[in-house]
Amino acid sequence: MFAEIISIGDELLIGQTINTNAGWMGEVLNVAGFRVRRVLTISDNRDEILRNLDEACAHSDIVLLTGGLGPTKDDITKKTLADYFDDSLIFDQIAYDNIIELFGKYNRDVGELNRQQAYVPSTCIPIKNKQGTAPGMWFEKEGKVIVSMPGVPYEMKSMMTGFVIPELKKRFRTPSVVHKTILTQGIPESELAEKISEWEDALPDHIRLAYLPGAGMVKLRLSGVGEKEENIKEQIDTLFKDLEKYIPGEIIGPEDEKLEMVIGNLLRERGQTLCTAESCTGGTIAHLITSVAGSSDYFKGAVVAYANEIKQNLLDVKEKDLINHGAVSSQVVRQMAEGARQKFGTDYAIATSGIAGPGGGTDEKPVGTIWIAIATPGETLVKHYQFGDDRHRNITRTALTALNLMRKAMKD
Amino acid sequence: MFAEIISIGDELLIGQTINTNAGWMGEVLNVAGFRVRRVLTISDNRDEILRNLDEACAHSDIVLLTGGLGPTKDDITKKTLADYFDDSLIFDQIAYDNIIELFGKYNRDVGELNRQQAYVPSTCIPIKNKQGTAPGMWFEKEGKVIVSMPGVPYEMKSMMTGFVIPELKKRFRTPSVVHKTILTQGIPESELAEKISEWEDALPDHIRLAYLPGAGMVKLRLSGVGEKEENIKEQIDTLFKDLEKYIPGEIIGPEDEKLEMVIGNLLRERGQTLCTAESCTGGTIAHLITSVAGSSDYFKGAVVAYANEIKQNLLDVKEKDLINHGAVSSQVVRQMAEGARQKFGTDYAIATSGIAGPGGGTDEKPVGTIWIAIATPGETLVKHYQFGDDRHRNITRTALTALNLMRKAMKD
Repeated sequence: MFAEIISIGDELLIGQTINTNAGWMGEVLNVAGFRVRRVLTISDNRDEILRNLDEACAHSDIVLLTGGLGPTKDDITKKTLADYFDDSLIFDQIAYDNIIELFGKYNRDVGELNRQQAYVPSTCIPIKNKQGTAPGMWFEKEGKVIVSMPGVPYEMKSMMTGFVIPELKKRFRTPSVVHKTILTQGIPESELAEKISEWEDALPDHIRLAYLPGAGMVKLRLSGVGEKEENIKEQIDTLFKDLEKYIPGEIIGPEDEKLEMVIGNLLRERGQTLCTAESCTGGTIAHLITSVAGSSDYFKGAVVAYANEIKQNLLDVKEKDLINHGAVSSQVVRQMAEGARQKFGTDYAIATSGIAGPGGGTDEKPVGTIWIAIATPGETLVKHYQFGDDRHRNITRTALTALNLMRKAMKD
Repeated sequence: MFAEIISIGDELLIGQTINTNAGWMGEVLNVAGFRVRRVLTISDNRDEILRNLDEACAHSDIVLLTGGLGPTKDDITKKTLADYFDDSLIFDQIAYDNIIELFGKYNRDVGELNRQQAYVPSTCIPIKNKQGTAPGMWFEKEGKVIVSMPGVPYEMKSMMTGFVIPELKKRFRTPSVVHKTILTQGIPESELAEKISEWEDALPDHIRLAYLPGAGMVKLRLSGVGEKEENIKEQIDTLFKDLEKYIPGEIIGPEDEKLEMVIGNLLRERGQTLCTAESCTGGTIAHLITSVAGSSDYFKGAVVAYANEIKQNLLDVKEKDLINHGAVSSQVVRQMAEGARQKFGTDYAIATSGIAGPGGGTDEKPVGTIWIAIATPGETLVKHYQFGDDRHRNITRTALTALNLMRKAMKD
C-alpha cells in the first residue's frame, strides 16, 4: 500500500524551515505498514498543488498533504482542494464550535479570518483539530484517500495519531514492517561492506540492508516485511547476532544507544568512574559524556589543557617531554591520561592530543595527527591516528574514536 | 530559472534521517538567484529515479540529485543515470587518483569496491570530491543541467559551493538576491517581534523579514530582490544599522559570526586570554570555544568540575560554601570562576553551575536552576537564571547565555 506526502510551503523550499513533518509522517506510516513512495515539497501555488496532486494520485493509494491551511492570504490549500474535487465550501458547525472553544480558552473573540476556517469542501470528512483552528480534511476519490492537514507540527501529529492512521488501517490491509539499526564505529563504509559481504549476500529476500554513514560511524539497518511481526523481529535479531562474527567487538549497540551511553552504563554497573584530559578535542568528550542524564554518577570531570603550561600545572606532564617530544606525542598523551586519572581519583581517564587544524601542522606532524590515551586500573593504552584536514571532523572523529577505545578497554 | 532537488534514500522516506540536505541546498540556490520549484524525496529504486528524473526535467531547468553514490550494493544512482542518458560507465583516472590520494592519507589500500567508484558515465563531467571517494556528475541534455552528488552532507556541500553553484551561475542569468542574517541571543521571539514591530512595518516592499528561532537565539533575516546587488546590499545594511536602536547591544553580529567567534576576535585583538570552569555545561563552552580555528591563541583550557571534590581540589572552592550553600549557588560559581582565572592565569574566566536535569532538582532548586559567573580583570559578575525541564536545551542555553555575558562583559 503506497502513500505519498505533499508538504506545501515556500519556507521549506528556501531552507528557512527544515521539513521535519515529512520525516515524522514517514516514520509513523512505515511503522503502520504503509510504504512511503515519495515526499513532494512544493510551494504555496495553486497550479503546483493541482499538478502534484494529480501526479501523486496517479502512483499511490494515499496522499497526505500538510500546510497552507492558515487564516491568511497565502494559505490556499483548502480552496485549491475544493477546485480539485469540483466542490464548493460549506460552513461546518463542529469546526466552528472547535474554534470558539479554543478562542474561549485564551479569552479572545473569533474574528472573520478565523470564522472562514470553519468552511470546508462539502464532500470531505472534516477532521477535528484539537490543537488549533484549521480542521483537517479527508477525501476519497476512485479508491484513493487524500487527506489535508495543517503544517504546524503538533497539530498535524495529533491528527495523524488520533484519526488518520487508525482510519487508514481500517481502510487498507497492511503487512508488518520491522526496522532495526545498529551502530558501528571506526570502520569505513567500504571496508565494512567487504567484511560483511558474505553475510549480506545471504540475507533473505524479505529483509533488506541499508548502510547509513555519519561522521566516524556507520549505522546498519535491516528492514523486514512479512505477515507476523514477531517472526520478522526474531529473524532480524538472529541476523544481527550472526553479524557479530564478521566484525567482532565492533557493534556498539542499537542506534539509539550512543557510545557515551554504552560507556556510562558499563561504568555505572561496575561502580567505576571516569575523567578526561583533553587537548585537541577541547572538551568535546566531556560534553558528550555529560549530555547523558545521570552522568554525574560516574563522571568526575575534565581538564581541557589547551596551553602547555596547563598540561604541566594541572596534569603533571613533564616539561622535558613537552620540550623533547612536543605536546602532540605518545609520551605527553600518556602522562595526560595518567595525570588526570590520579588528580581526579578515577578508575579510567581518556586523554587526547593532536593537531585539529587548519593551523599548527608541520611536515613531521601534519594536520590530522592525533594521539589518544586510555588510562585504566591496569595499564595505559596509547594509540596514534592520522585523520584529515577538516577541523570539525577531526575533533568529532577523535572524540568518537577515543570513546570507542574506552568502550573496548572496558570490554577487554 | 527553476531548479528541482531529488533526494534519494529510503532512510529519508521512513524518517530515519531528516532531509537537511534539501533545505541547505534550497537556501544556497535561493541566495544564488535560482528558484526551487520542488524537492522530491524518493527511494533507492531504479524505476522511481527514472520516472522522477523525467518529471523534474519536464518542469525545471536544473535538476540536482543527492544520494545513492556510495560503494555498496544499495547505491544505484550512478548506474541508473548511465541508463537514463543511454550511456555507459568509463574509468576516470582523475577520480581514481583522488581516491588513491584520500586512502593514502589514511595509509589504506584501495579495495575493489572503491575502485568501482572511479567509473562514471562517459558523457558527464565528473566533479571532484574533496571530502570523499564518490565523484559528482554534471550532465547536460536539451538545455537542462542534471547534477548528481553524494548524500553525505559535507561532501555534497563542498561540491555545491566549490563547483555546482559557480557553474550554474555561468550557465544561467539570475536576478540579484541578497540575504543577510543577524543573530540575537536571549530575547524570546514574541518579545523581539514587539520590540522591533515599528521597524518591521516600515520595511520596503522588495525586502522581506524572516524570524529564525533556535535554541536560546533568534536569527533575523532580510531578503531583498532587485536589479543591482550593490543597491540591495546597501539598503539591507542600513536597515540593520537602524535596527540596533530598537534592541541596543543585543545584536551579536552576522549569523556566521557566532558568539564564540566574536569573543575570540575581541580577545585576540586585545591580547587577552580566557578559561572556563564548567559544572552543568560539562565542557560544552570549552567545546564551542575550541571549535574556532586558532582558539589556542587566547583559550588556555578548562576544568569540568562535575564532582564537588574536583571543585575543591582543582578550583579551590571552599568546602564550607559547598556544604552551606550547595554546588549550585552564587558563592560556589563565583569561586569557580575566580579559582579558574587564577589557576589558568587568564584575564577572564567563565563558570557555570546548575541543575540540567532530569534528576537532581529540589523544591528550593528545581531543574533548570542555573548560576553563571564571569571573572574579569576588574570584578566578578554573577547571574542567576531559571530555565526549563529539558536537559539538552538547558545545557545549550546555559552555554550560550554564558558566552553572551562574556561578550557583554568585554564590551562594557
